[in-house]
Amino acid sequence: MSDAGKGLAGVVVADTTKSKVDGENGHLYYVGYTIEDLAANATFEETTFLLWNNRLPSQAELSEFSDTVKAEMEVPAAIIDVMKSLPSNAHPMGVLRTAVSMLGNYDPEADDNSMDANHRKALRLLAKMPTLTAAWARIRKGQEPVAPRKDLGLAANFMYMLNDREPTETEIQAINVYLVLLADHGFNASTFTSRVVTSTDGDIYSAVAAAIGSLKGPKHGGANEAAMKMFMEIGDPAKVDEFFTKRVKGEGYKIMGIGHRVYKAPDPRGGILHVHAKALAESTGNAAWYEVAKRLEDLARADEYFIERKLYANVDYYSSIVLYTVGIEPDMMTCLFAMSRIAGWAAHIIEQWGDNRLIRPKANYTGEINVPWVPLEER
Amino acid sequence: MSDAGKGLAGVVVADTTKSKVDGENGHLYYVGYTIEDLAANATFEETTFLLWNNRLPSQAELSEFSDTVKAEMEVPAAIIDVMKSLPSNAHPMGVLRTAVSMLGNYDPEADDNSMDANHRKALRLLAKMPTLTAAWARIRKGQEPVAPRKDLGLAANFMYMLNDREPTETEIQAINVYLVLLADHGFNASTFTSRVVTSTDGDIYSAVAAAIGSLKGPKHGGANEAAMKMFMEIGDPAKVDEFFTKRVKGEGYKIMGIGHRVYKAPDPRGGILHVHAKALAESTGNAAWYEVAKRLEDLARADEYFIERKLYANVDYYSSIVLYTVGIEPDMMTCLFAMSRIAGWAAHIIEQWGDNRLIRPKANYTGEINVPWVPLEER
Repeated sequence: MSDAGKGLAGVVVADTTKSKVDGENGHLYYVGYTIEDLAANATFEETTFLLWNNRLPSQAELSEFSDTVKAEMEVPAAIIDVMKSLPSNAHPMGVLRTAVSMLGNYDPEADDNSMDANHRKALRLLAKMPTLTAAWARIRKGQEPVAPRKDLGLAANFMYMLNDREPTETEIQAINVYLVLLADHGFNASTFTSRVVTSTDGDIYSAVAAAIGSLKGPKHGGANEAAMKMFMEIGDPAKVDEFFTKRVKGEGYKIMGIGHRVYKAPDPRGGILHVHAKALAESTGNAAWYEVAKRLEDLARADEYFIERKLYANVDYYSSIVLYTVGIEPDMMTCLFAMSRIAGWAAHIIEQWGDNRLIRPKANYTGEINVPWVPLEER
Repeated sequence: MSDAGKGLAGVVVADTTKSKVDGENGHLYYVGYTIEDLAANATFEETTFLLWNNRLPSQAELSEFSDTVKAEMEVPAAIIDVMKSLPSNAHPMGVLRTAVSMLGNYDPEADDNSMDANHRKALRLLAKMPTLTAAWARIRKGQEPVAPRKDLGLAANFMYMLNDREPTETEIQAINVYLVLLADHGFNASTFTSRVVTSTDGDIYSAVAAAIGSLKGPKHGGANEAAMKMFMEIGDPAKVDEFFTKRVKGEGYKIMGIGHRVYKAPDPRGGILHVHAKALAESTGNAAWYEVAKRLEDLARADEYFIERKLYANVDYYSSIVLYTVGIEPDMMTCLFAMSRIAGWAAHIIEQWGDNRLIRPKANYTGEINVPWVPLEER
C-alpha cells in the first residue's frame, strides 16, 4: 500500500461547518467567525453555542444557555466518591476518562440518541467536565473537592472550585480565552475518534470517553505539558541562551510548542495567547516563565533553521505559560484542553448524527491464507 | 465531496497480518488459518496467542500463556465496589467501558508503552474482562459476584463466575467456540477505533475503552441481542410462518442476523454456530429457540428476495441462540462479544504500535469564512 494512506493524511472523510483551519495563511474560523473576534468578544459558553447551533445566540438565548450550564455543573456524589478511592498517582486524563464514562452510567438519557437528548447530554458534559477536573486536582493532593456555585460562569466556577476562593478577573479571563481558543480545530485525532464511535450509532458518553483517551496520547494533547516541563527545566531567563545553543542546536532543533503539522504561517492562537501570557506576567508580577518562553521564541525566530521551515510558536507554547501562571499544574493541562475541546467534540458528534454513516475503512491483508493446521501435540 | 468518502468505504488505511475476510467466497482467516480449523481445534487462549504472536504456540508456550491468564483473572476489589454502587439498570456495555477505564487507573504500567508492557497489559485485559462481565451480570440482579478460580480456563471460569456452579462441558465448549469465532474480523469499526486512539501514542486502556464504546453502538455490536429479541418476540416455532408472512414480507424483508455488509456467500461463522446451536438444543433438551431460528432461516432461504440478494444467516443469528441457551441474557450479549474481540483489538493495537503513524483524515469545510462579528447587544 502507499505510505500516504497510513495516516489517512489528506483523505477527506466528511463535510463540516464547524471550523476551518487555513494553515497556509495562519487563520482559524469557527462557523465562519475569526478566532480573533471570538477571543476578543466571546465567552466560552457563547463560543460553544455557536459551534453547536451554527450561529451566534441572541442575548436571551445566551442567558438561557449559560444558566443551564450553571445548573448542570454538579456531578453525582457517587462519582466524587469513586475519584476519592482511586490511586492518587493515576493519570489525570485517565481519571477524567473514567469519570466521564461513569457520567454515562448515571444519565437515564445515556442511550437516547434523539437530537434533543444529544444536545442536553452535550451540555451536561460541557458543564460537568470542569467540576470533575477541579475535583481531581484537589482529591489527588488530599484536599476536599469544592462544589460549583450557581452564580458563576464556567471559567470562573472552574477557578473557584480549583482553589476554593473567589477567582480574580485576570484568572477568569485567562481561562476563558484558553477555552475559546482550544474549542475546535478541524478533524484532529480526538475529534475524528468521537466521530468514528458516533458512526456506530454510539452514545455521546462513549464518544467523549473515547475522545479523552485519544487526546491523552502524547502525540495529540500532551504538548502544552511538555512545553511547560521544558520551560521548568530551563528554569531561569538567564539560562535560555545556553539551552538554545546546547540543547536545541546541538540536538536536532526541536523546541516543544514550536512548529505545527498544519500551520505554515504563525498559529493565530499562539499570538493571542502570547498577549495574554504577557498581560498575566505583568498583572501577577510573576514574569519569569513568560520571559523564559519569550527569549526562547526570539532566539528561534532569529535562527535560519526555524525561519526557513516556517516554525512558529503554536497554541501549546504560550498556553502552557498562561495556564501555569494561574495555577494549573503541568500534568493537569491536558484536562483543561479536554474541558475546552468538549465543545468541538460535541459539535462534531451532533453534526455526525445529522448525516450518519458507519466509518469503516479497509485493511490490506499481507499474510498467507490456508495455512495447514498443525495439531498442538505435533508442535 | 463524494458520497463514498463518507464512511471511508473501500479506503485502505493500513497493512495487517491479523485476519482476512474473503466476503465473496465466505472465508475468514486468522493469521492464515481457516476459522473452521480454529473452531474445531483451538481454545480461545490458543487463538489469542496466534493473533498476538502471528504463529501458533508450542505446548509449553500455550501452557504458560493459559496459566498467566488464570493468574490475572482477578480484578481489584475497589472496581467491584464501584460496580456495586452503579445504578442496576446501567447498560452492561457502559459499565464494562467504565470498569476497563478504571483498570487503567489501577495499573502502574498503564502509561508504559513499550512492546513488552503492551503484551502484559493486553493479557490483563483479556483475563479481567470475563471477570468484570460475570460480576456485572450478578451485581445488577443483587447477587454477590464470584471470584475466579485458579484451576479453570477462560471460558470455563467465565461460566463458573456467572452461575456460581461447576460449568458443564457443553457450556464450556459453546462459550469457547463463540469466543474463537468473534475474536477478529478485519477493520471493523471498534478495531479501527482502537487503532485511531493508539495512533496518538495513546495507552491500551484508552484504546480498549474506546473500542468498547464503539462496539456498544447498535450498528456494530448490538445485532445478536436484536436477533434474540426477535426470536423471543416470535416466541414459538409454530408462529414463525405467520411472522415471516406478515412481518418479514409485509415490512421490508428485514430479518435481524440475516445478511452481512461484507459476506456475499454464507458467513462461515454462521454455519459453525448453527451446528453448535443444534447440538446445544439436543443436549439441553431446550430446543424451542433453535427451532424458531431454524424455521425462520429455512423460510428465508426458500424466498426469492433472500436468494437473489445472497442474504445468509450471519454470525449474530445462531450465536444469539448459543449464548441464550447457556444462560446469557440478551442485553449482556454484546459484553461477550467484547470479551472475545479484546483478542483482536489488542492484536491490532500491538500491530499499530509496531509501525505507528497518527491517523488523522481531513474534513471538507462547507461553511462561510470571515463572517463579520455582531456584538451581543445588537443581536
